[in-house]
Amino acid sequence: MSDPGAGMDLVPIGRVESPLTDPAAAPKQGFEGAPDAWLVLEPGVAEGLDGMRAGDEIIVLTWLHRARRDVLRVHPRDDLSNPERGVFTTRSAERPNPIGLHRVAVAAIEGARVRVRGLEAVDGTPVVDLKPVLHPR
Amino acid sequence: MSDPGAGMDLVPIGRVESPLTDPAAAPKQGFEGAPDAWLVLEPGVAEGLDGMRAGDEIIVLTWLHRARRDVLRVHPRDDLSNPERGVFTTRSAERPNPIGLHRVAVAAIEGARVRVRGLEAVDGTPVVDLKPVLHPR
Repeated sequence: MSDPGAGMDLVPIGRVESPLTDPAAAPKQGFEGAPDAWLVLEPGVAEGLDGMRAGDEIIVLTWLHRARRDVLRVHPRDDLSNPERGVFTTRSAERPNPIGLHRVAVAAIEGARVRVRGLEAVDGTPVVDLKPVLHPR
Repeated sequence: MSDPGAGMDLVPIGRVESPLTDPAAAPKQGFEGAPDAWLVLEPGVAEGLDGMRAGDEIIVLTWLHRARRDVLRVHPRDDLSNPERGVFTTRSAERPNPIGLHRVAVAAIEGARVRVRGLEAVDGTPVVDLKPVLHPR
């Protein structure tokens, strides 16, 4: 049996193309006034988009490549007046595995490029997965 | 500037402890009758749980270590009567980065062990992140 902890290496399936360039100035969540952005997928994985449509709600997983990974407690929202708490109870980018989770609506699809509404990830952020939003939850 | 695609290696922060052992027999989604399970975190990251409470709704990210990564099209729900579509429009475990996303309620916390309701991941699955569910979305 293989070691379940082996080979946990992510491959970028694409990149975020966004007017946001400064993480400190970016909205903390997409619904807090983030701009629309493009997800520019690698040509080799574009087939994985088959069936996606404008109007779909999707979850984008990113790799927050600028985040520190050795942080276990933070002041939520970088506000020192908020008491420190564990990173797993916050959406801080700083955490052992800095995976960003973004729920967005698809505005358009052009080949391997997906236009999404309100994404707070900065330009150049690696995209690692796209998933449909499921119902009932 | 560092290469944004470099160092995208996940570290397990813990493991799933579940009565489910066979992925083929497990429910496809947690709300489809999956059993309760323990998330057994590494002692070194337990501090990251500070502030989590029973009753919280959280998102668990796992590494689906048995999944194929070279698949871009699947029959949804492994049902051959469903037309093939791109993996990014499905929750198939088979995808370039097999990250599992599970929305669950916390039933109890005992030190570095978190009891959650209705998790479809099988015993031994590496856990890579925990995040709070945010509102409004």
